[in-house]
Amino acid sequence: MVEKPKNLEGINVRKDENFSEWYTQVVLKAGLADYGPVQGTMAIRPTAYEIWEMIQEAFNRMIKSTGHKNAYFPMLIPESFLTKEAEHFEGFTPEVFWVTHGGNNKLGEQLAVRPTSETIIYSFYSKWIRSWRDLPLLLNQWCNVLRAEIKATKPFLRTSEFLWQEGHTAHATKEEADKEVRMILDFYKEIAEQYLAIPVLQGMKSEREKFAGALYTTTIEALMPDGKAVQSGTSHNLGQHFAKAFGIEFLDEQGQKQFVWQTSWGISTRLLGALIMLHGDDKGLVIPPKVAPVQLMIVPIYKDIEKAEVLKASRSIMESLRSAGFRVDIDERENRTPGWKFNEHETKGVPMRIEIGPKDIASGSVVLVRRNTSEKRSVKISELNNLVKEEIVKMQNEMFEKAKKFLDQNIRVAENYDEFKEILNSKKGFIKAGWCGKDSCEDKIKEETGATSRLIPFDHENTKSCVYCGEKAKSYAYFALSY
Amino acid sequence: MVEKPKNLEGINVRKDENFSEWYTQVVLKAGLADYGPVQGTMAIRPTAYEIWEMIQEAFNRMIKSTGHKNAYFPMLIPESFLTKEAEHFEGFTPEVFWVTHGGNNKLGEQLAVRPTSETIIYSFYSKWIRSWRDLPLLLNQWCNVLRAEIKATKPFLRTSEFLWQEGHTAHATKEEADKEVRMILDFYKEIAEQYLAIPVLQGMKSEREKFAGALYTTTIEALMPDGKAVQSGTSHNLGQHFAKAFGIEFLDEQGQKQFVWQTSWGISTRLLGALIMLHGDDKGLVIPPKVAPVQLMIVPIYKDIEKAEVLKASRSIMESLRSAGFRVDIDERENRTPGWKFNEHETKGVPMRIEIGPKDIASGSVVLVRRNTSEKRSVKISELNNLVKEEIVKMQNEMFEKAKKFLDQNIRVAENYDEFKEILNSKKGFIKAGWCGKDSCEDKIKEETGATSRLIPFDHENTKSCVYCGEKAKSYAYFALSY
Repeated sequence: MVEKPKNLEGINVRKDENFSEWYTQVVLKAGLADYGPVQGTMAIRPTAYEIWEMIQEAFNRMIKSTGHKNAYFPMLIPESFLTKEAEHFEGFTPEVFWVTHGGNNKLGEQLAVRPTSETIIYSFYSKWIRSWRDLPLLLNQWCNVLRAEIKATKPFLRTSEFLWQEGHTAHATKEEADKEVRMILDFYKEIAEQYLAIPVLQGMKSEREKFAGALYTTTIEALMPDGKAVQSGTSHNLGQHFAKAFGIEFLDEQGQKQFVWQTSWGISTRLLGALIMLHGDDKGLVIPPKVAPVQLMIVPIYKDIEKAEVLKASRSIMESLRSAGFRVDIDERENRTPGWKFNEHETKGVPMRIEIGPKDIASGSVVLVRRNTSEKRSVKISELNNLVKEEIVKMQNEMFEKAKKFLDQNIRVAENYDEFKEILNSKKGFIKAGWCGKDSCEDKIKEETGATSRLIPFDHENTKSCVYCGEKAKSYAYFALSY
Repeated sequence: MVEKPKNLEGINVRKDENFSEWYTQVVLKAGLADYGPVQGTMAIRPTAYEIWEMIQEAFNRMIKSTGHKNAYFPMLIPESFLTKEAEHFEGFTPEVFWVTHGGNNKLGEQLAVRPTSETIIYSFYSKWIRSWRDLPLLLNQWCNVLRAEIKATKPFLRTSEFLWQEGHTAHATKEEADKEVRMILDFYKEIAEQYLAIPVLQGMKSEREKFAGALYTTTIEALMPDGKAVQSGTSHNLGQHFAKAFGIEFLDEQGQKQFVWQTSWGISTRLLGALIMLHGDDKGLVIPPKVAPVQLMIVPIYKDIEKAEVLKASRSIMESLRSAGFRVDIDERENRTPGWKFNEHETKGVPMRIEIGPKDIASGSVVLVRRNTSEKRSVKISELNNLVKEEIVKMQNEMFEKAKKFLDQNIRVAENYDEFKEILNSKKGFIKAGWCGKDSCEDKIKEETGATSRLIPFDHENTKSCVYCGEKAKSYAYFALSY
């Protein structure tokens, strides 16, 4: 049962009626982002930014504990750098913003505003790496990147500027680079699943879909409620492509010159888009408690004469919960009714609400309301801290499990092309199908259905024939429409 | 007594012989930064970036605990936005990098790569602020900004791209904005003094030196060993200048439309330049222990047969110090001698070194060496954790006190213009002199001596006459050459 929001600030379209409009309303009305003046740009507002900060914190812990360090590289890239790796240049040039003037002076060479930083970073690596002793070099940067998106921009999911981290490592051997790629991909899965409650599939990208300039690309892919996939993080083995283009060589222990093996990998504010789409409901946003800037909002309920007592009790509960390590706020605004506040914090996705009035105080209890289930229960104040701790874990798990069930139920095997098209026309989701491995079949499927190959699973299962051409299949691939 | 470094990687010029060359060597050889391909750009390497992360962490704590939130705004600013506030436009246009193309398409309007974000942020504020209930609005963003610097670029101190935070707040009254400006300026002083051990003077900028578009600007100014000042953070009251240009109005509690009062404020990676200059010595960098990525480096010393025992003891000491909350590393490289390692970690500014060999182990002690004094002492392992705790506080204080003494000794009063010029020609530093408050005197002083007014102290002391024109002085001003 979905209760329609009662005030104008609420979401006034149902998620299953008009998903795209629903998404836009949640983004704007939950105060997550707002449109910038330049096509495809946006301001990331505090709630969304705080979730991003929590992703940063978690990911920094993972990479720092495995020997990576953060650094920062210039944003402006001379055009001549971009052209050094041919595939890379071709892949990124159409969406580069070009700086042509500094003040009133025309620049001698136009400069790219970084769409990604391989080329600029590797120009430094070619100076910094001399010997096997300099390896592995494991750096990461948190920054903004810009890509001129012309069509179908959508806050968080496809924007002309976004925030991300990009890791760039150099290794002595391919095996080490392979290991790095997979370790990072596992970190990405952990961020998505354990923090954002977004279940993902892991796998390999096809040649067509791999990063421009990579040897191969691995990916995590999430599934949205409308049956479309979101590529949520990629980890590339760059082979020696860039090493050769930029002259990144080292003397090995035997004194032989070798090119390094490189990886690069990134997750971005796009993850926030997936979080919004996946967990939100008709009332608005639902933030997984682990990454919620405010996990509990206390709403005091009183008539004038009871005010002092209720506020005092509310604040004392806030302090007690804060001391226990929870992120708690209290909504003391005088010019808003409790009902108005309930709606607002529901729209904004606060995981739990605590209602407290004179009757609750008299009975030594409060009312705890869970955002994802709307479940209301009376809780003894003396048991609140312990219960909240449990409920946070429970809610986080429930959100993940619900999404996982949805994902699992929406992976369908297509034995032939008719089934493939049938699934795409009706239910969407991931379609698991045999694939011969040829670009031409992938191209035809994309052309005819709009679906792209999202990933090839790491564990090769035997399959019979290519869903398109009928020839012997090399592996399964997961196809889907995507953002 | 200064010991000359013995290996090529060390600094080979004395700080007091050629300060500028010394600075460049420290930046490069301590691995803090490296030059980018575009004039005035640099890569910030891990050690410097980690110090920046510690500044971020400390400042985030300060602003978040006072109700500010982080957000992120678009980097690309339409030219028409910049022109809305006339002074601001005039001040920044000469150094703006302009984006004219997205991919192959010429843009309808050229876009500024943000040199600062007042205009783009306030275009959002004009949408977000409607009522007194929306105030104060207290946002901050951490980002990169770009300013085309043509001459005298220097890593960290003057670069075409740098990292900073920029706070942007909107208030109902001037008084609230005034208070905000000063609170933030005090935070900046705390960051500089308590974390970076950089003593600063606080005060007001002259009309000539204030931020383009501000009502007034406050500043913290540090003094470098060569007698030149570094503006290390500024906090502006923007008055209603931008509010009027961007139409940022609110309905007050009486239902009257009012323009908001605004502030903006920033500190940047420039602080790292001041840290390097101020604390470094002939051996290289010296990092204040509170912000040192590695506070203690353990160097095991052994002959082959003793290796296992020494490494075991070293690692156990590392674990013990880490559990006590210190940032400790161990240099186990086999292909480097202990002496080579000592030099390297001295160049890199690690606050303390622990030497441990078989004799130390036998006596249950280690040798602790302080970077700033080169003081060596034998310490019982059982007492190490407590002693390190003390020594870190002591070293931090010593570094601050030494710099404070230098600052205090280099503030000189000039009674007249001859004295003014004499001080500037000989000792430099800050010159405290009466000033009538007229732009013309300030301009003449700058033209004739190169010194600018760095600040006007908040506490007005009585003074007699303007050091330049001899007319009645309004206040003292502090003049100096500056970076």
